[in-house]
Amino acid sequence: MGKLTGMGLTAQLHETPGHPIIVAKNKHIAGRRTVLLYGHYDVQPVEPVNEWRSPPFEPTIRDGRIYCRGATDNKGQLIAHVSGLAETLAEHGDLPVNLTILFEGEEEIGSPNLKPFLEAHREELACDVVAISDTGMVGEGIGTFTYGLRGIACMEVKVHGPTIDLHSGIFGGAIANPVTMAARLVATLHDDEGRVQIPCFYDDVNDLQDWERTSWAALGDGDAETLSLTGSPALFGEPGYTERERRWARPTAEVNGIGGGYQGEGSKTVIAREAFFKLSFRLVPSQDPERILDLAEAYLKAKAPAAVRLEIKRGHTGMAYLTDPHSELGQAAQRALLSTFGGDVALIREGGSIPIVQAFKDVLNADTLLLGLALPDCQAHAPNENFPIANLEAGIRLNKALLRELAA
Amino acid sequence: MGKLTGMGLTAQLHETPGHPIIVAKNKHIAGRRTVLLYGHYDVQPVEPVNEWRSPPFEPTIRDGRIYCRGATDNKGQLIAHVSGLAETLAEHGDLPVNLTILFEGEEEIGSPNLKPFLEAHREELACDVVAISDTGMVGEGIGTFTYGLRGIACMEVKVHGPTIDLHSGIFGGAIANPVTMAARLVATLHDDEGRVQIPCFYDDVNDLQDWERTSWAALGDGDAETLSLTGSPALFGEPGYTERERRWARPTAEVNGIGGGYQGEGSKTVIAREAFFKLSFRLVPSQDPERILDLAEAYLKAKAPAAVRLEIKRGHTGMAYLTDPHSELGQAAQRALLSTFGGDVALIREGGSIPIVQAFKDVLNADTLLLGLALPDCQAHAPNENFPIANLEAGIRLNKALLRELAA
Repeated sequence: MGKLTGMGLTAQLHETPGHPIIVAKNKHIAGRRTVLLYGHYDVQPVEPVNEWRSPPFEPTIRDGRIYCRGATDNKGQLIAHVSGLAETLAEHGDLPVNLTILFEGEEEIGSPNLKPFLEAHREELACDVVAISDTGMVGEGIGTFTYGLRGIACMEVKVHGPTIDLHSGIFGGAIANPVTMAARLVATLHDDEGRVQIPCFYDDVNDLQDWERTSWAALGDGDAETLSLTGSPALFGEPGYTERERRWARPTAEVNGIGGGYQGEGSKTVIAREAFFKLSFRLVPSQDPERILDLAEAYLKAKAPAAVRLEIKRGHTGMAYLTDPHSELGQAAQRALLSTFGGDVALIREGGSIPIVQAFKDVLNADTLLLGLALPDCQAHAPNENFPIANLEAGIRLNKALLRELAA
Repeated sequence: MGKLTGMGLTAQLHETPGHPIIVAKNKHIAGRRTVLLYGHYDVQPVEPVNEWRSPPFEPTIRDGRIYCRGATDNKGQLIAHVSGLAETLAEHGDLPVNLTILFEGEEEIGSPNLKPFLEAHREELACDVVAISDTGMVGEGIGTFTYGLRGIACMEVKVHGPTIDLHSGIFGGAIANPVTMAARLVATLHDDEGRVQIPCFYDDVNDLQDWERTSWAALGDGDAETLSLTGSPALFGEPGYTERERRWARPTAEVNGIGGGYQGEGSKTVIAREAFFKLSFRLVPSQDPERILDLAEAYLKAKAPAAVRLEIKRGHTGMAYLTDPHSELGQAAQRALLSTFGGDVALIREGGSIPIVQAFKDVLNADTLLLGLALPDCQAHAPNENFPIANLEAGIRLNKALLRELAA
């Protein structure tokens, strides 16, 4: 807040039932294009803490990168834009466009309070276009325009069996083990090759367009890059698609966590009374998240034996997003990327989800320009999250170029 | 030690690479039968601690039962015997038999140091019969002679995938999720009805004898009792067997714990770099635990896709045990039970494992009399473990009667 007002913007903190929302503006002048710059200041949980090389909330610079939780997702990218605005304001006394800053603190839990806020402040937030840097670059120094995102739908399943933990010698063989049953339910989600087996799951999935497959294939060897980034022994996924296509344009069912029974060293011969697993589905355009959760819930309930009881809790959801990269605004964004990074601009979709992008479309009728500054190895959501200082500096340049291009 | 020497026994503490072993004796006189009384002072882990109604290591009496970890398994039963010996010694100045006490502290981890100790102290521990109270009674006040135990074989499986935790939006769909793969491996262990699917798993399993099936069926409705004790929504297990037969005479594969990925509240959209599950197999006479672990390891490795790497760690093992309840010593034990409890004596096998019983047979060439004092709801291995004071008192009477009967 202090930084924003110090730059010459008016800024306001809005309380919500969750974390507050910040809105800041320059003086809006009729006839100029209005740009809404969005970012989020909340972060993912930091565990496992012991895998961090430096404390997650003490920013540490090593080898030209800033390491801390939020360094890339999203504080680092957000600060690049703010710094770009500060430079333009210092140099010119104003920005070339009407600017509205919108920063929130609940993106990582699906922005539950932002959509109602947009609806309540529709006029105040009215804009021609939204700009966000919360996505990735395909590689170091390659300007990247993201024209699509996957949606998300989360669910937690608890499998209840006996009312107490049991001795697995005394009772083993006669009752259903909730841990085993949870694992068996997880195993029903995919076939051996990785296709999701929930009936009707793929019903609303649109095929990739030819130009997309061609353009993505031209980005180079995605397999090698993903193997190197992840350290996985081998790639694995839905047959018939490249690894980029699987990540950017195909839906998934992933188990983000599973637990039950003895977690310590060695063995404890127990049958746990309950087990859980946490699911998130990544969705592609046209898939309705609530319908996917309906399908999943019905499927899991049908698969569970009568000897256990399921407790299903739905989590946050968000629609996938897709815009036309060849629109006037899309081309302006690509010119800004070109002037910042040189070379060719990569046109991609991404596997992650920013549900609020769909809300900007629905409530403000504005398209969103996704101009990511994260590199594939920035470890968003993982230990040792980091952000290269070069990208922070590029982000400052990008912000300045973007406002110039959008003003034109 | 103090208590034992105070009663008039000679007692010795033997250090081992793990927890020490206590040996105590009265004066052995030629021509008398020699009885080895075994017990263990170690206990299972106490977690989940928050489910205990009173602290697990502060013995608390409620409604005629002593609540604490070890109350039934095995400290309470061990103390009943020691108290019986003390009473006999106080009344008669000696015991009617040559007695050797053998108490150890590693039963719950498979007694790794006891078998070498038996071998090293073969003469000192020579005996005609072993007596142990570390099993259960079929119901309140029903004297129970256990003539068979299941064996055990433990194994921990870690499933490694990527070298770091990954964002499930960015990478989901392109790599194998170790949590999903761990669950899929667990799911391969059984068919839908609960039969173990590891090839050759049932090869060495002996059929039940007719008198066993008849005698166990006469013990009453095991289904209702197990449903009530466990609170499970329904029974579940290998078709073709009653629930008692499944628990006492059929082998199992149970998952005692599973874990991987996010364990906290809400969701974290992560693909964990690894997951684990802990297995224990309960085995029946003639099944070799090491062979079972070989079969399981080969099966799991064959089932795992190349996109993950398995790390398998073997845990403790123990052979199943079976003796003839109609032998002379078996009949003496049943007379002691009859004089302690009245009514009929139940002849049963049990699902749990006391691997050392097989070692007594192998090293000392002695059969073991299993004279359990635990009730089905004593919650061994679970929170709120307890032991009825009435069973403590019955155990004292049983000890005295048993030594009299074995002396005859």
